[in-house]
Amino acid sequence: MADASSSDITGEKQTFKIRKLEITDKRNGYMELLSQLTVTVSVTDDEFDKRFKEITSYGDDHLICVIEEESSGKIAATGSVMIEKKFLRNCGKVGHVEDVVVDTEFRGKRLGKRVVEFLTDHCRAMGCYKVILDCGVEKKEFYEKCGLVYKGIQMSKYF
Amino acid sequence: MADASSSDITGEKQTFKIRKLEITDKRNGYMELLSQLTVTVSVTDDEFDKRFKEITSYGDDHLICVIEEESSGKIAATGSVMIEKKFLRNCGKVGHVEDVVVDTEFRGKRLGKRVVEFLTDHCRAMGCYKVILDCGVEKKEFYEKCGLVYKGIQMSKYF
Repeated sequence: MADASSSDITGEKQTFKIRKLEITDKRNGYMELLSQLTVTVSVTDDEFDKRFKEITSYGDDHLICVIEEESSGKIAATGSVMIEKKFLRNCGKVGHVEDVVVDTEFRGKRLGKRVVEFLTDHCRAMGCYKVILDCGVEKKEFYEKCGLVYKGIQMSKYF
Repeated sequence: MADASSSDITGEKQTFKIRKLEITDKRNGYMELLSQLTVTVSVTDDEFDKRFKEITSYGDDHLICVIEEESSGKIAATGSVMIEKKFLRNCGKVGHVEDVVVDTEFRGKRLGKRVVEFLTDHCRAMGCYKVILDCGVEKKEFYEKCGLVYKGIQMSKYF
């Protein structure tokens, strides 16, 4: 676990801790944070717990990290990575980064970069040969600052 | 399992079967087919079997399909999909399509489209709200014919 500290815009001291998502984080604003990214709809405590257990059953192959603001316990940022096992590249592994978001209240503190670095470090440690992610064109510059480069396009189909 | 049939360019009848990857497919040209997509390096039988078992341990959450040319038993096309479990979108699921390739010998028979449809149907049946994939810009038109639309860009970092 790494520690990050920063000062907020009023000058008041804030301390942040980056760690794995815990099952109790639903009450620390985790779902509200995800809702800043896209539609979350309402998820009950039971649904949350069930999904949490499904994801954690994959162990290090599916990691969700959060940055917690220590004084309030509030989740300030998050991101996830899922590790894909392939046959190509000598039975290589690839990290798929997903759902990176920083709470509007905590932007401008480089927390997004911390999340991406945490996830990327995890992939490297897991023996992946690369990490990939999809984003809107407007996020290209941010991810370049995180050390990623443009690779191609994303296509999708909604059901 | 769906069946597809086609005639080859000499007019000789060929019949194709689409199915899940089997552990015996290493000797049916599966790795040689992947090598048409990217670097595969040499994978021993033991490494193949180990990776096959790791992937199949995920059950329907990681599916690799192949199209087999029935008279020769040769693998003519393949593609995979890994299903990601999220908290957002009401604990939604997303299918990540990867490593779609058709053997140069069998191109022009719409086998690639069959692979994408097979994987997409699987995602729909698994309750995913969308399916996504990354590709080079030159593949955009092909995937549009498969019913996908441009969504954004892919960023990557190689270790």
